[in-house]
Amino acid sequence: MSVYQELQDHFQRIGDLRHVQAITSWDEASMMPIGGGAARGRALSTLSVVIHQMETDSKVEDLISEAESESLDDWQAANVREIKRIYRDATCMPSDLVESIAKSTSACEQAWRQHRADNNWQGMEPLLAEVVNLARREAEVRSEANGLSKYDALLDTYEPDVRSAQVDRLFDDLKTFLPGFIERVLDKQSGEPLLRVEGDFSIDKQRELGHRIMKSLGFNFDHGRLDVSHHPFCGGVPEDVRITTRYQTESFVSSLMAVIHETGHAMYQQGLPADWRDQPVGDALSCGTHESQSLLMEMQACRTKQFLQYLTPVAQHNFLGGDSNDPAWSVDNLHRLYTRVQPSFIRVDADEVTYPLHVILRYELEQQLIEGDLEVADLPLAWDEKMQSYLSLTTRGNFVDGCLQDVHWPAGLFGYFPTYTLGALTAAQLFAAAQDQVKGLLDEISRGNFTPLLSWLRENIHSKGKYLNYKELMVAATGRELDAEYFKTHLEQRYFG
Amino acid sequence: MSVYQELQDHFQRIGDLRHVQAITSWDEASMMPIGGGAARGRALSTLSVVIHQMETDSKVEDLISEAESESLDDWQAANVREIKRIYRDATCMPSDLVESIAKSTSACEQAWRQHRADNNWQGMEPLLAEVVNLARREAEVRSEANGLSKYDALLDTYEPDVRSAQVDRLFDDLKTFLPGFIERVLDKQSGEPLLRVEGDFSIDKQRELGHRIMKSLGFNFDHGRLDVSHHPFCGGVPEDVRITTRYQTESFVSSLMAVIHETGHAMYQQGLPADWRDQPVGDALSCGTHESQSLLMEMQACRTKQFLQYLTPVAQHNFLGGDSNDPAWSVDNLHRLYTRVQPSFIRVDADEVTYPLHVILRYELEQQLIEGDLEVADLPLAWDEKMQSYLSLTTRGNFVDGCLQDVHWPAGLFGYFPTYTLGALTAAQLFAAAQDQVKGLLDEISRGNFTPLLSWLRENIHSKGKYLNYKELMVAATGRELDAEYFKTHLEQRYFG
Repeated sequence: MSVYQELQDHFQRIGDLRHVQAITSWDEASMMPIGGGAARGRALSTLSVVIHQMETDSKVEDLISEAESESLDDWQAANVREIKRIYRDATCMPSDLVESIAKSTSACEQAWRQHRADNNWQGMEPLLAEVVNLARREAEVRSEANGLSKYDALLDTYEPDVRSAQVDRLFDDLKTFLPGFIERVLDKQSGEPLLRVEGDFSIDKQRELGHRIMKSLGFNFDHGRLDVSHHPFCGGVPEDVRITTRYQTESFVSSLMAVIHETGHAMYQQGLPADWRDQPVGDALSCGTHESQSLLMEMQACRTKQFLQYLTPVAQHNFLGGDSNDPAWSVDNLHRLYTRVQPSFIRVDADEVTYPLHVILRYELEQQLIEGDLEVADLPLAWDEKMQSYLSLTTRGNFVDGCLQDVHWPAGLFGYFPTYTLGALTAAQLFAAAQDQVKGLLDEISRGNFTPLLSWLRENIHSKGKYLNYKELMVAATGRELDAEYFKTHLEQRYFG
Repeated sequence: MSVYQELQDHFQRIGDLRHVQAITSWDEASMMPIGGGAARGRALSTLSVVIHQMETDSKVEDLISEAESESLDDWQAANVREIKRIYRDATCMPSDLVESIAKSTSACEQAWRQHRADNNWQGMEPLLAEVVNLARREAEVRSEANGLSKYDALLDTYEPDVRSAQVDRLFDDLKTFLPGFIERVLDKQSGEPLLRVEGDFSIDKQRELGHRIMKSLGFNFDHGRLDVSHHPFCGGVPEDVRITTRYQTESFVSSLMAVIHETGHAMYQQGLPADWRDQPVGDALSCGTHESQSLLMEMQACRTKQFLQYLTPVAQHNFLGGDSNDPAWSVDNLHRLYTRVQPSFIRVDADEVTYPLHVILRYELEQQLIEGDLEVADLPLAWDEKMQSYLSLTTRGNFVDGCLQDVHWPAGLFGYFPTYTLGALTAAQLFAAAQDQVKGLLDEISRGNFTPLLSWLRENIHSKGKYLNYKELMVAATGRELDAEYFKTHLEQRYFG
């Protein structure tokens, strides 16, 4: 057996444990009764430690250097490169720091649920300050290991090889473009009627429609499921992808789009290179790439008039039992519902036009926090200033609609937020390329046929795993590096086309 | 930190991984889509290897001997005793034998599904012969390690400290009693009418009734769930017990009793000593004890007239929407349905009277197989002879209703079968003791109040974990060692009382 093979076998075993971890985590969010929480937390924490021990096993370093001198094909070499990255990122952190972060973020995240409910910034501040202090130490340690700036060292863990200099350029572009654009959209939409859709939106009926649309999009039910959780997510493993949604019985609109969003994530998972399952090179490329797949389905493909031409009669039959002439159930009204723009406080409820400004606000603040240019005590004020500047809304004294709204910072996730908007920009660029390269793509979607789109994504994105980096992937698929131009064009066409 | 504490912490981590293993295994049987099977099998196999490595870690031996010389309380000492047992049973098996058994049973079990469907004994024979050969080697190895006879060395892994000499005495008693008893029951029941129960037995309705009865029995839904699987089982962990059933829409009778059976298992799990979760001494005592808890609910408590007095109106309201005077829905007819005796081929479908003979047949044959007194080639003939002798049925040429019906032997489980009937005898003895010690127990059950029964079980059985062995447990709870007398008296009273 080659040394390379030994290394691959070791990571197969790690992949096996990650499989068990993924399924048990899905269960925790979607199936577990309340009383199982404490034991489950401990069990998953022990499993993480075991996985971490296997990733940082000293034999891995020797195996890597020996494997590198063997004769490897391109994918094997890329796999060793990714294994090296995992080993570096896992071993560079001293175990006392890992433990401090685990404890501090766990305490902060649990307290956050209560403090957010109570709009209690005073209670939150010292806990978050501790988390930020530890994140600064983590950034220093990672920076020393990978030679990047402190913030970039964190960003790299979610978005390998992407740097804040590039993100800055993209986001500056959006910051210039969006405020004026939003004003124009609001002005235009203020005169458009918006009718409330009514029908039998029982959970069973909504689940039925969700299943039907998932099948149309190309979700493979031999390799996955749809269930319910407090927040929609995509979990599981490529062989068995678990997506969730939540249902409101007064409307099907937001739950269905959550299903479509998670289905985009899920089809990326199901389409990852079959020969490289459980190997690092066979994993999804990055958080931004993953988000691009969900947003491509949710925002690009499925808020088009063409998709709504397909959806409308299907939804009418599902919820009304037959065709309807009710203007609320027309394609036009559904399209207006699905493209309504409204500046608001809460990121997760934001439309595609205002969403990037929520992200840019957080991106700028977390850079300052990590670099030491902003202290946690000054966060509410800084948040409010940016909200006023970007979205003309004030959050003064309203922490729950301001800097207490997201779990990311209490959970210690710094460097994650920009990936949402990288995903949105990527989705626009990929969907434009797909339409260029595949004739009649939107016509097929209007007939409920997603096969041409999915085939294009399988070939250009899903099957690549981590073989190419972000830049290489974009150039190979679209002929250009990531550029905000496509997203801006998309918005112009959708709202003024 | 004491050495004992270090040992306990190590087994806490093993318990954590067993938690993850239990939830993922439950998922495999109840949630997983078909395409997830291959990856899941590999993932769970890797997790087993990791757990086995932790159990056989050479430091465990040192920790045990050092901990034994520390000052320990009774439960700690019992925990060390159980850890020692696990270490001995895990380390005595050479790893090449463990691997051969894993491969051979996996191949045999998979082939069994097809061969059983095809009634194909020829295809099965060589695979089963290989499994039996390896089981013989396992029995030899275990016998050397624990000083027991070969069959007892296997029996001990399911029923610690119980020996075949004791089982022989109990089973001989039943073999003498049952054939004549069955004849008397058949004679009596042949004149009794049996009316078919009809109603809206949709799955939703059945699930609703199942939930209601589980709550009455004392199942805690903050710490468990009810779902569906191909075969009913009880899985999960004490903090989060997962039971399953299956539904037939033509009748609610058998599915409800499966729910009650699994609820008996589940309440044992939920009642295990809270201070000893994840420690070996805090685990369920044995397979027979576990089965006694399910059979106590299913066969002892819930086929009484008293339980059916409670169930009948509840079931009528559930399935018919109100009271009914239909004689099929009377307490008497339901009682006749739930106590019908009929010799048949299939063990899992057998009534409580004929069931022990199915077990005795398998027990006698597997002893001969392990001791080398019977070869796999001669199994169908030996099976048929015993079926004719015990139940007057022939399985000549009918392998699917004979020696191909159970998964146990293909899966390498030799020594497991007797625990079913040990459980039945134990259930009868415990239920008699509970009625003696708790006044008005059956009256309370007729009102749907299981609290007195559950309290008695919690105190006398569930909270003991592995602190006492089988004999000590029975003497403490009932004043006597396990005796078939109680089971025989139970049958006399139920069928001729």
